[in-house]
Amino acid sequence: MASKESNVDVLIIGAGPAGYMAATWFARTGVNARIIDKRGNKIFAGQADGLQCRTLEVFQSFGFGDRAIKEANHMLEICFWEPNDKGEIIRSNRIPDTVVGISRFQQVVLHQGRIEQWMTDSIKKWSQDTLQVERPKLPLSIDIDESKVNDTDAYPVTVKVKTLSDDDANPEQFGGKIANGLFRQFDGDKDLKVEDDSEIETIHAKYVIGCDGAHSWVRKQIGIEMEGETSDYIWGVLDTVPITDFPDIRNRCAIHSKDSGSIMIIPREDGLVRLYIQLRETPRADDDAEKKGRVDRSKITPELILENARKIFHPYKLDIIDTKWYTAYQIGQRVSPKFHKDNRVFIAGDACHTHSPKAGQGMNVSMMDTYNLAWKVAQVVKGIAKPEILATYEAERRQVARDLINFDYKFSRLFSGKPGEGGISLSEFHQVFEKGNEFASGTIVDYTPSMIVSKPDTEMEKFDEGSKGLQAFEFRAQYFNPLAKNVPVGRRLDHAKVVTYSDAKPIWLADRMKSDGRWRLIFFSGDVAKNEKAAAFGKELSDYLLSKDSFVQKYTPASAQLFSVIDPILVSSSDRRSYEWFDYPEAFRHRDEDGRMDYWSIYTDEPSYHQGHGKIYEKYGISPETGAILVVRPDGYVSLVADTNTKGIKEVEDFFGNVLVEQNPSWASHGFIKAKRDEDLVDTYGQNDIGFPVFAR
Amino acid sequence: MASKESNVDVLIIGAGPAGYMAATWFARTGVNARIIDKRGNKIFAGQADGLQCRTLEVFQSFGFGDRAIKEANHMLEICFWEPNDKGEIIRSNRIPDTVVGISRFQQVVLHQGRIEQWMTDSIKKWSQDTLQVERPKLPLSIDIDESKVNDTDAYPVTVKVKTLSDDDANPEQFGGKIANGLFRQFDGDKDLKVEDDSEIETIHAKYVIGCDGAHSWVRKQIGIEMEGETSDYIWGVLDTVPITDFPDIRNRCAIHSKDSGSIMIIPREDGLVRLYIQLRETPRADDDAEKKGRVDRSKITPELILENARKIFHPYKLDIIDTKWYTAYQIGQRVSPKFHKDNRVFIAGDACHTHSPKAGQGMNVSMMDTYNLAWKVAQVVKGIAKPEILATYEAERRQVARDLINFDYKFSRLFSGKPGEGGISLSEFHQVFEKGNEFASGTIVDYTPSMIVSKPDTEMEKFDEGSKGLQAFEFRAQYFNPLAKNVPVGRRLDHAKVVTYSDAKPIWLADRMKSDGRWRLIFFSGDVAKNEKAAAFGKELSDYLLSKDSFVQKYTPASAQLFSVIDPILVSSSDRRSYEWFDYPEAFRHRDEDGRMDYWSIYTDEPSYHQGHGKIYEKYGISPETGAILVVRPDGYVSLVADTNTKGIKEVEDFFGNVLVEQNPSWASHGFIKAKRDEDLVDTYGQNDIGFPVFAR
Repeated sequence: MASKESNVDVLIIGAGPAGYMAATWFARTGVNARIIDKRGNKIFAGQADGLQCRTLEVFQSFGFGDRAIKEANHMLEICFWEPNDKGEIIRSNRIPDTVVGISRFQQVVLHQGRIEQWMTDSIKKWSQDTLQVERPKLPLSIDIDESKVNDTDAYPVTVKVKTLSDDDANPEQFGGKIANGLFRQFDGDKDLKVEDDSEIETIHAKYVIGCDGAHSWVRKQIGIEMEGETSDYIWGVLDTVPITDFPDIRNRCAIHSKDSGSIMIIPREDGLVRLYIQLRETPRADDDAEKKGRVDRSKITPELILENARKIFHPYKLDIIDTKWYTAYQIGQRVSPKFHKDNRVFIAGDACHTHSPKAGQGMNVSMMDTYNLAWKVAQVVKGIAKPEILATYEAERRQVARDLINFDYKFSRLFSGKPGEGGISLSEFHQVFEKGNEFASGTIVDYTPSMIVSKPDTEMEKFDEGSKGLQAFEFRAQYFNPLAKNVPVGRRLDHAKVVTYSDAKPIWLADRMKSDGRWRLIFFSGDVAKNEKAAAFGKELSDYLLSKDSFVQKYTPASAQLFSVIDPILVSSSDRRSYEWFDYPEAFRHRDEDGRMDYWSIYTDEPSYHQGHGKIYEKYGISPETGAILVVRPDGYVSLVADTNTKGIKEVEDFFGNVLVEQNPSWASHGFIKAKRDEDLVDTYGQNDIGFPVFAR
Repeated sequence: MASKESNVDVLIIGAGPAGYMAATWFARTGVNARIIDKRGNKIFAGQADGLQCRTLEVFQSFGFGDRAIKEANHMLEICFWEPNDKGEIIRSNRIPDTVVGISRFQQVVLHQGRIEQWMTDSIKKWSQDTLQVERPKLPLSIDIDESKVNDTDAYPVTVKVKTLSDDDANPEQFGGKIANGLFRQFDGDKDLKVEDDSEIETIHAKYVIGCDGAHSWVRKQIGIEMEGETSDYIWGVLDTVPITDFPDIRNRCAIHSKDSGSIMIIPREDGLVRLYIQLRETPRADDDAEKKGRVDRSKITPELILENARKIFHPYKLDIIDTKWYTAYQIGQRVSPKFHKDNRVFIAGDACHTHSPKAGQGMNVSMMDTYNLAWKVAQVVKGIAKPEILATYEAERRQVARDLINFDYKFSRLFSGKPGEGGISLSEFHQVFEKGNEFASGTIVDYTPSMIVSKPDTEMEKFDEGSKGLQAFEFRAQYFNPLAKNVPVGRRLDHAKVVTYSDAKPIWLADRMKSDGRWRLIFFSGDVAKNEKAAAFGKELSDYLLSKDSFVQKYTPASAQLFSVIDPILVSSSDRRSYEWFDYPEAFRHRDEDGRMDYWSIYTDEPSYHQGHGKIYEKYGISPETGAILVVRPDGYVSLVADTNTKGIKEVEDFFGNVLVEQNPSWASHGFIKAKRDEDLVDTYGQNDIGFPVFAR
């Protein structure tokens, strides 16, 4: 037994979108993490392709949103097509693909390989190339030492991992020369014989995150079974260049034919189009008692899928060239009842929820799972936050998974159903599609009350109660603090533009709030120029923040820079001409020991010279009379809205007291966050991040 | 004599901004070019830093405008400061730095090294790494064989080039540890002994472009002397991090003190600030009769510059840390009377014009020189355009250089002059500054009538006739064709947004008109849905374009794709809901032999879902009743406005007949431009360029 043994703070199993997103967080926050994958190759075609608004916001917060905007196809419009009396399809409506006003970004489409590349580049940059996907590596066993799960310093999870040969890791795809998703799932663990211990490593981890897909090995190891059901609806997928006289081929289209099934068109980058095509007639298995009567996916070919598509397209013609990828799937909705074991081993992404792909949710919700989880793990591993925050992962994300499954159940049955007399109602389909698009954007996810979301419990709102026997889906009602009438607590803070006081730049405030692991304290000061009370409270808050007893001081490690755990930002409703820089409270224009000043923490709500007026006070429903204090989580979700008075400060103090770990104080060692330029780390608006938070190496 | 000998179509001498810009064009258009530089290193600090609007538009057209927007500091505001009665400086006004509405971009600031890097990356990408700066290589002689200058196939220019050792190429900078510009100019040719022929290469070139700076060796070789004068004003420059209680340090500031001189502040990336500081007292040379009394730049130190700055800043305090670079210069305005010899050897950039740096013009105008020149050379080398177009380079750019010199003469004297009684007028200074900013943006450059700018000759407009003895500066009056009332012929076509018909995308039409070497024919069709005449002319134009006799066919090489020399674009004033795709004329939705359709050449003027209404017809002053045809040069300048009738087609036909070379026709070999994806070549809006124009390899 000369096998290798090692410790790691976090082990990620599975390098798909969920795994990459977790690794992106860990690289950004400087966590000692590893990521393994059993497949030998990255993917280069097919798979998921839609990037929803919220995902783009998150990409932007990591500094690569611009790559998505530049490279991906922007999908702007949905056209609905339905059969006329003659059984020909006709256009019935056009609507915007992204609900207008829901986000600064709109949905874009690009193949999954590019998306994983951006995260790979970001991981490389921030980890200085120390965090790389290790592949092909197959996990063999996972054990949790229950006696140690409450010890934050322990490594209670033991994972044995075998390095595969390239032959083992790259089973030949069948289905011909065209890449496809029919046989993507590699069950490398099935028949593997472990003969040589030298290829096996024993990894002791504080935390393990299973991002290993719908057939998750991690999920099975921790004894969780998916719940849900599968329908009879079979769909095929083609990534191809259509040659057609159908006029809307470059828009997203939802087509119901009279008798031949439905199609969804997703226009893609580079002249490609993804066609989701309902397969009314599919080859069935007959060779195996267990599988008998089920669809035999190995018999599905691009030609068979195209044949179905042509019937639906009638009277339009359809040929295809340059087909890049195809697959077929059977619609089902399944969700995991639990998302973790002992809050030490977590599962995320497809390991927790599977459903039909047409709403572009799988990859997005998967990435948002680990975007929710990994910063919490990072804060706990770093000793910043209490381990209790880890329980919010399941609470928050399981609800999202259930909402998704309920929505998809309804949506996919309406899309697959035959329209008209005795069938489904197309007007109901359109209505669900529009409501679903709002949900699918990811921007209305609403996290439940918890130690990191300070609000009373709210009722669920049902959508579409009167549906004909189909399950209704429901969303959590929003909760607003009257101080910020349009800021739902528990939702992501919608992006709004402000003007930088010091240099008159119009910026999205969110671009000042990068995903760097910091909590934000946004102080809406009101009109400090005209309102003496506002100016006085600004001074009170500033004095508090700079005092030795403040929550900033208490929860920031002595070795770290002062604002590296909690980052204060001031948004004034006074314009730049009415109030001087040096009259603003000092905490928001802090100097380091060399005298360097932070010029980028004070903003105003006023018209910019070239990009209009963000009207952030109006957008957030904050009165310039009263102002407000917002606490925003490292992932951009609103934790708390507090009043601009001593009581409000106390409320924020209590909030952080409940979440963060008190550090060993040593006031003298706190310095201002120094600007440190590295051309590779440069960021939007010519500002690289102002220094490195405590989480960075 | 075993020295190396070779042929090249174009040799660029000097790898500064002008040289890189020329190389960027040649890489993009697939021209056989080389670029040499005598210095051993790229620069990493200091030098020029401002990027003007027009430069950003050009960067965008090459596909790297986004890098500037992301990395550079956005400079939004100018604050004017002037002395009060007590001799203290006070803020007198704030104005936007970029004139509002003048461009889709605003001025940004970043050090020259990054800017050269973007061009280097673009050159690498498009030349597939075959075009690289060869350094250190020193040109020794240049000879033109006059008997061959009229033969387009000949290589009449012979340049001998010596490869330097690293020691020769990197003379030690004096002036201490801080990088500086005082001794940047390397006169490597002065004392060099050529002992070994093996280090010498003889290059035979069709064309040579000298981009070798203010002391241009190429200029001297072709016997051109600069004209102009030098003032007594001496200025110092510091790139530094100021520690100050001056409140506007992150804005551009123009400060006149009472007695101590003036300062310009340029806020930079990464907390840096560039300070231009007038030096009232400067060390003079005393050791040399020739130089006696002139400023001895070698005695200027950062401390001396800072000392001057502190006097001007009074009563504000100023310290500096992290100084990255410094220099000093004596203001002069010099311009070259000729820009070429035999239209075979050209000079560009600082080799043609030098002036004070504070308006951020040197690097920008230099790049715009070769942006103007290199596409013409490319078209001639490729046999697409007649060599006569090369004469337009001097005609167009010398006027710009003269305008610049006249403006700078006035501006720099007003800036350096003492304000108040007996001195200069600050209100005149402000007025000239504002007018100058419009000029400095690069967007109002107005090219003279020529074979590629079809307009009558226009008067010059004088600005500021009444100035007190200072030379007035003047701009060419605009010429408008009544069909496009707001499109000055000879100026760059201002950017405007349209909506892609096929997929509802709001795009800047300019982003469809990349700098890829193609001429554009923009057909403003009018309201084809409601106006039968407009629809009929659309069909006429389309039939013409697709006919064997059209200018598209005639001037496109048989081996090239149909629209690779002239690229037709249709902009309709009918909205997308009122007219069907297949009713638009065929030339604008052309199919290739496999049936692939071009979906990105038809646009509409209508509100987009998320980004407002571009109103391009209104912006360009084109009536939806009449429409218009615009011919736009490969560099984005408007050549011609023609009517939407048979006469208009004839006018365009005559225009191209005068400029382009008739190709050997072979209709059958023309194919549609195929979409070819390469992830590295991907471009804005998810569309990589639709195929490669004839100029690409």
